[in-house]
Amino acid sequence: MFKYVKKLQYPVKITNPNPALARFIISQYGGPDGELGASMRYLSQRFSMPYADVAGLLTDIGTEELGHLEMVGAVIQQLTRKMSTDEIIASGFDVYFVDHTAGVYPQFASGTPWTAATLQVKGDPVTDLTEDMGAEQKARTTYDNIIRLCGDPDVRNVMRFLREREVVHFQRFGEALGRVTDRLDKKNIYAVNTAFDR
Amino acid sequence: MFKYVKKLQYPVKITNPNPALARFIISQYGGPDGELGASMRYLSQRFSMPYADVAGLLTDIGTEELGHLEMVGAVIQQLTRKMSTDEIIASGFDVYFVDHTAGVYPQFASGTPWTAATLQVKGDPVTDLTEDMGAEQKARTTYDNIIRLCGDPDVRNVMRFLREREVVHFQRFGEALGRVTDRLDKKNIYAVNTAFDR
Amino acid sequence: MFKYVKKLQYPVKITNPNPALARFIISQYGGPDGELGASMRYLSQRFSMPYADVAGLLTDIGTEELGHLEMVGAVIQQLTRKMSTDEIIASGFDVYFVDHTAGVYPQFASGTPWTAATLQVKGDPVTDLTEDMGAEQKARTTYDNIIRLCGDPDVRNVMRFLREREVVHFQRFGEALGRVTDRLDKKNIYAVNTAFDR
Amino acid sequence: MFKYVKKLQYPVKITNPNPALARFIISQYGGPDGELGASMRYLSQRFSMPYADVAGLLTDIGTEELGHLEMVGAVIQQLTRKMSTDEIIASGFDVYFVDHTAGVYPQFASGTPWTAATLQVKGDPVTDLTEDMGAEQKARTTYDNIIRLCGDPDVRNVMRFLREREVVHFQRFGEALGRVTDRLDKKNIYAVNTAFDR
Amino acid sequence: MFKYVKKLQYPVKITNPNPALARFIISQYGGPDGELGASMRYLSQRFSMPYADVAGLLTDIGTEELGHLEMVGAVIQQLTRKMSTDEIIASGFDVYFVDHTAGVYPQFASGTPWTAATLQVKGDPVTDLTEDMGAEQKARTTYDNIIRLCGDPDVRNVMRFLREREVVHFQRFGEALGRVTDRLDKKNIYAVNTAFDR
Amino acid sequence: MFKYVKKLQYPVKITNPNPALARFIISQYGGPDGELGASMRYLSQRFSMPYADVAGLLTDIGTEELGHLEMVGAVIQQLTRKMSTDEIIASGFDVYFVDHTAGVYPQFASGTPWTAATLQVKGDPVTDLTEDMGAEQKARTTYDNIIRLCGDPDVRNVMRFLREREVVHFQRFGEALGRVTDRLDKKNIYAVNTAFDR
Repeated sequence: MFKYVKKLQYPVKITNPNPALARFIISQYGGPDGELGASMRYLSQRFSMPYADVAGLLTDIGTEELGHLEMVGAVIQQLTRKMSTDEIIASGFDVYFVDHTAGVYPQFASGTPWTAATLQVKGDPVTDLTEDMGAEQKARTTYDNIIRLCGDPDVRNVMRFLREREVVHFQRFGEALGRVTDRLDKKNIYAVNTAFDR
Repeated sequence: MFKYVKKLQYPVKITNPNPALARFIISQYGGPDGELGASMRYLSQRFSMPYADVAGLLTDIGTEELGHLEMVGAVIQQLTRKMSTDEIIASGFDVYFVDHTAGVYPQFASGTPWTAATLQVKGDPVTDLTEDMGAEQKARTTYDNIIRLCGDPDVRNVMRFLREREVVHFQRFGEALGRVTDRLDKKNIYAVNTAFDR
Repeated sequence: MFKYVKKLQYPVKITNPNPALARFIISQYGGPDGELGASMRYLSQRFSMPYADVAGLLTDIGTEELGHLEMVGAVIQQLTRKMSTDEIIASGFDVYFVDHTAGVYPQFASGTPWTAATLQVKGDPVTDLTEDMGAEQKARTTYDNIIRLCGDPDVRNVMRFLREREVVHFQRFGEALGRVTDRLDKKNIYAVNTAFDR
Repeated sequence: MFKYVKKLQYPVKITNPNPALARFIISQYGGPDGELGASMRYLSQRFSMPYADVAGLLTDIGTEELGHLEMVGAVIQQLTRKMSTDEIIASGFDVYFVDHTAGVYPQFASGTPWTAATLQVKGDPVTDLTEDMGAEQKARTTYDNIIRLCGDPDVRNVMRFLREREVVHFQRFGEALGRVTDRLDKKNIYAVNTAFDR
Repeated sequence: MFKYVKKLQYPVKITNPNPALARFIISQYGGPDGELGASMRYLSQRFSMPYADVAGLLTDIGTEELGHLEMVGAVIQQLTRKMSTDEIIASGFDVYFVDHTAGVYPQFASGTPWTAATLQVKGDPVTDLTEDMGAEQKARTTYDNIIRLCGDPDVRNVMRFLREREVVHFQRFGEALGRVTDRLDKKNIYAVNTAFDR
Repeated sequence: MFKYVKKLQYPVKITNPNPALARFIISQYGGPDGELGASMRYLSQRFSMPYADVAGLLTDIGTEELGHLEMVGAVIQQLTRKMSTDEIIASGFDVYFVDHTAGVYPQFASGTPWTAATLQVKGDPVTDLTEDMGAEQKARTTYDNIIRLCGDPDVRNVMRFLREREVVHFQRFGEALGRVTDRLDKKNIYAVNTAFDR
């Protein structure tokens, strides 16, 4: 089970509302490589992970990603408060506003509601960890792109913190994959799926 | 942010693997009215909720639902361990197994990957709470149906606990909706959206 | 069966084409809380509703929503007639135009084709009516948001009429829910599903 | 607007409940080529159809398809009444039942909620009518397949009636396409889109 | 199997990057009526086509559409190279860029990832060919719309070539449908499905 | 452009029709980690790959995957020919048959039409190659699972060939990733995206 700690992992204080930024930063909330997907990927994969240390890592990173989801939600909320209708229209935020007002809804920047088709739980330790390494690189590139497009230092600052965490997670998953393959048959690393062939 | 507590909210101990049950219980993990959707609905809605007490309630229930998601995942994991391939085929679990082995993947019983199209964040306190009351009734009916279809007392027991929690959440959301409408203009309860018209 | 009456429920006469408005008003045609979903929700739920009076209400409101769908379609059609390509491009309507010209396609404002994942038919009278009350509130908020964003009195006028109908439907569903729960066991209102446990 | 006539277009009287049949007949309710899609396709295309006679045809057939949707819903409802839980499980109806009990939900036989991605409104008279001819053939094949798989004469009877109507609609759309192309430039039938290039 | 020929079917040389055009031309890559869908529709339908000449036609056109997919990909790639971040933001390309940088991703102009729900493989020769004729008209209209919206002669040129090919394919499918129906029972053209009733 | 070679990459000769197997092998045609997705992932990523050798590798493997798609299609076609309606019903193939007869439709084993949400084109060489390594492992696990569930040597034989190719592709992508990172700044491998920051 989970316990809520009433504190963000890293502070979010945005001075200037800017719905134009919210239009694309929402992708780190509910986009194809965003934090909702990250947390659900790891928290789901852990059930079939046969190694306690790796299952623990998935739980830890998955729980941290829930905190990142909260941080990105706070960014969206602060970027969209006190907007005038003129600002909503001029920024192109109107197509979001009509269905969600200034609420935080888990969708891609391109408008698609988040779908679990963007993640996989394959029930194979080697495969799931390789998927996770890809997922972290994709999240890293998304943060790179947000930082390229976003001039507001209050937002960039938060995005840089989150980007850095993705790089650390990538490294952790790489190390875990190394430990898992070390335990497998050296002649044919793919001869068994240790999650199923027990 | 969130802290993981290495304990289920209510114990899950299933003696007999049974992939036939896992085929439909998965809907309480990633189905249209399942726990993934419940947690993401409430944890997303709280950002635009203008009343601190109701925002807190959304956080509390959303966090509890993350724990329910974990419990349902544990049920699926225990129902599908040590299956033989004959059992997988005979139970019709094969169409799930091919893509997820015995992993826990967030999908509907009918096979659709979970999609955020099943939830709404409308950014209006009255509307979001009414949606939440509907969501809890839908979850309650899903548990009712699982209990109707499932003879295993180890599973029924857990499902009854979870069903009871949905009824409690329904009541809490109803009380919160009462508090919210009490604060609104008595002549026209829908004259303003207190989340936006400040 | 249905009979078409060659008349709108309320007249739609829009003087000034305006594809920028059509971009988001389309959500009341085929969006997550729009009229296509409303009509299909109620017309589908009535099959399993065990009370004739409530089944009749679902049919009546579902049929009326088909007329609202038609009215919103007429709004979109009138907002997008005789557009020049410059107007299409300047208004951002180009991403819609490329695939639908000036046709009326059932999609979310955010671009997603309408999906039945946005509605539920749970086969339980209490649950389906609670879902319906949430649905009407969501539609009401969508109309609120359109009215906030839209300065054209020809359009606002129609949107106000439709918004008012959603509030009436919300009240009707509330009354029906009251009648349904009055017929249930007072000690445990959720002890049975009268649509199934007969 | 629409008026409900409390009578099915063709009577549905099914003596023997049979959830195994409901599992695939649901596709004519909310499947890729089912009646929900048919009605929404034609009722949406009519807004941009520049010829009054063809727009009227789209309205007429679209309205008739709403009545077919109702007939298929009645078939599903009668096939799934008074099921025991043993019958639900033995027939594989359990994965539907868990989320919809014995309600009628618009989904593909394969489990996907209906999506408007299965239809197109292209805003071009020649194109929309050609799409419609394809749609009627697809519906016809679906009815063919249901008749192949279904031994119950009460159900076959209804399916044959509906199949026959699709063939008639196919012919009507073919005639309409002929009338539309007769009005176009003989040298280059695709030189203009009469719905837009006015 | 397929062999790659390192040459485009028709040359693509775009002088001026223009992400605003890429926003909607992407629909001919991965949109509802675009080239990905075209190739996959025909290459999938051929397996159940019982006539060798028609199966061969599906293979030929399907293979050509893979080459068109490549051409449209080259158009997108050339329209989005060397963009400045200012150009990305001003053109509204930011909501695409955040998740794909300047990569070519198969999505609708409206933002939806390509889905096979947009095509059908019905396993009936008459039906599949009628669907194909509709598909070619839809692709033709999409090219018409791109040409209407796009002033750049380098792009229009390519779009005109591709549009012309769709008209040719439409005619080829029409001829094939004629040959198929000539082989069927004259009294009831829909009495059998020659792909299944053998 | 592509040229079709009228020969399978590896022969498919299945003696015994078996629709029960087709139900889940379809996932290697149009499932989340199947061959449609593989070919479209690599053929799409190559447009933004700044290194000619790696772009060539993506083209080569993407083209080979089109051939694998064809092989899997041939397997499905041969497993479903000459089925009786009794076999269709007994095997649970009926829910597929109703909408596709014995045609080959790109869908997940679980019933979802293929969606591009299952792949990513991130426009960053390091990220895209890491995604590709994950994709190959996921395809490998899917083949593992098919081999576990499938006793027919005619089918297993083909599946083993295809599985072996995925392992080879995984290695090729790993080598390519090594070459790409060798060219990047040693101090901060993620300091630039060589596809965009030129």
